[in-house]
Amino acid sequence: MHELRKDPIIGRWVIMAKDRARRPGNFIVSDKSNADISLQKECCFCEGHEKETPPEIYAIRDNHSKPNTEGWKVRVVPDKNPILDADVDLTPKGHGLYDVLEGRGAHEVIVETPSHIANMADLDIDQIALVIQTYVARINDLEKDKRLQYVLAHKNYNWSRDSQNITHSYSEIIATPVNPMRVKEELNGSKKYYDCHERCIYCDLIKQEVAAKERVVFENDHFIAIVPFASRFPFELWVLPKKHNAQFPKGINGLELELAKTLKEVLLKIKEGLGDPAYHFVVHTAPFQRQKGKSMRVNTMEEDYHWHIEIMPRLTHTAGFEKGTGFYICPIPPEEAASYLREVEI
Amino acid sequence: MHELRKDPIIGRWVIMAKDRARRPGNFIVSDKSNADISLQKECCFCEGHEKETPPEIYAIRDNHSKPNTEGWKVRVVPDKNPILDADVDLTPKGHGLYDVLEGRGAHEVIVETPSHIANMADLDIDQIALVIQTYVARINDLEKDKRLQYVLAHKNYNWSRDSQNITHSYSEIIATPVNPMRVKEELNGSKKYYDCHERCIYCDLIKQEVAAKERVVFENDHFIAIVPFASRFPFELWVLPKKHNAQFPKGINGLELELAKTLKEVLLKIKEGLGDPAYHFVVHTAPFQRQKGKSMRVNTMEEDYHWHIEIMPRLTHTAGFEKGTGFYICPIPPEEAASYLREVEI
Repeated sequence: MHELRKDPIIGRWVIMAKDRARRPGNFIVSDKSNADISLQKECCFCEGHEKETPPEIYAIRDNHSKPNTEGWKVRVVPDKNPILDADVDLTPKGHGLYDVLEGRGAHEVIVETPSHIANMADLDIDQIALVIQTYVARINDLEKDKRLQYVLAHKNYNWSRDSQNITHSYSEIIATPVNPMRVKEELNGSKKYYDCHERCIYCDLIKQEVAAKERVVFENDHFIAIVPFASRFPFELWVLPKKHNAQFPKGINGLELELAKTLKEVLLKIKEGLGDPAYHFVVHTAPFQRQKGKSMRVNTMEEDYHWHIEIMPRLTHTAGFEKGTGFYICPIPPEEAASYLREVEI
Repeated sequence: MHELRKDPIIGRWVIMAKDRARRPGNFIVSDKSNADISLQKECCFCEGHEKETPPEIYAIRDNHSKPNTEGWKVRVVPDKNPILDADVDLTPKGHGLYDVLEGRGAHEVIVETPSHIANMADLDIDQIALVIQTYVARINDLEKDKRLQYVLAHKNYNWSRDSQNITHSYSEIIATPVNPMRVKEELNGSKKYYDCHERCIYCDLIKQEVAAKERVVFENDHFIAIVPFASRFPFELWVLPKKHNAQFPKGINGLELELAKTLKEVLLKIKEGLGDPAYHFVVHTAPFQRQKGKSMRVNTMEEDYHWHIEIMPRLTHTAGFEKGTGFYICPIPPEEAASYLREVEI
């Protein structure tokens, strides 16, 4: 038997397996697609190979080291094949029914470590904190470009769009001139809730999850990691700050190390418990508050939205039904997934 | 350079490659994951193996043949591992913030041919027409169950959720007790357009595409197959009936053979032109018009919505950015994809 569960924020229904769920052990990846890290001797992201990437945009460096040389801890370079580009006209065009906007934006790569380490889970906590600090620095810098509406800091581990075979831990920054639909859906849903209750729906959700315990994977004073009630993917995780803030750069201020501890914990659990699968994570933060922002309200956003990170291990594939309906099919109940991950020893 | 394109119906933005697009030839699947059809000697979907499936729900049969024996042309059986089930209570439940609905519905398999043929593209046109006729019969039958809101007829070729290795051409029917988000988005978008223009947006879109020609892959008197302006996936195709109708079962009446010709044509082009890739297709029709339907308006739906089929070849993978934003990244412009497919000789 199964049940339908509705994400309380954006209203998406998920069909949730109850009794024909696969056992957690069945998700373990046996045929590892991960390239052998030891074979990759010439990695352009390793320290000493700075000349093999485009010039750096930003770096956290030792005091006396120069840009594009050794001595860095985290390094940001433009993506060699950017999805969005900085130098285009942003005038909207119409073609009859259709609207077109040039793809202005930014696409950057954050090299998370000078050493050849593949998985963020294997970085030191201090190093992960530097990566988080870098997300903030890049978002704050890109906010200055008034033509940009949104910046998505995200990560694809062991998964590449272009079949590149990079086994060095990196994140991506993509800045867009329009607000992403997924984020708008969350904003709309959280605003509706706020209008009704005058409370943030994420804050209420955290309270309920802390009380219920069954979907909590990890918790410290500042963060909670849960398998969401209506998870789209098996072992999907949300990392939520307990203190309300709509904006990631403001909300994370002073808590970089706490978030790093939380990420390290849950990413290691995914690695050890699920056979080192590919995963994605995305940082969801409120859009920039532009004076002339066409599509975004600015009134209650600070009160009703709540930044968070969504982590999606890559264990199943979607098919025509999901693509055709927007329903997702999640083959393991969140409570069972959370229980399994809680018990993974790391 | 790239551009952002907005789907005029549901408002989804797509980042569209312009100059760094992959050439169509690059999408050809070289490492075929398709199981060798000749090796599969014992197929439970083949004629003569009727006892190996659950008893049939429906079949198109020779005059004197009995259910669950030989002599059928198309056969419908319940899915052995249904995503949704018929025998559950439909009372909504709440858990604090969360809404839960038992997973009532239906999940059926349509075996498209008694012969062991893998791809619908390789069926005779008459046979494809019988499959279409079966979609209609099942949707009409399921409509009688007043607890169901929607039926999705769809197909996954060479792609299985459960890693089953079925190489016999089949479709699936999934009926749901709530309306799918993707369809609601389309309904909302088309209603907005209708409220403004008093015309169906799909009808206007067809007119514009016929005039522009550049995204048309195939056209006959009754149907048009286009690569949509804001396609989410490379070589995505929409098959649209030229005559307006919101409901697939009503709209297709008398045109089964014409649709079969159209499907055969475009599926063969995908097979021959793109190296026989996996694909999905979904039939989008208006939801059932329930008197007590909670979530669906019934007033102008017949005028403003327009049934259609979306075909999605499986050539790329989405990553964290797509999942995190709702943006899709499509690496080939629709005009180029359409041009390539138009020229594929079949």
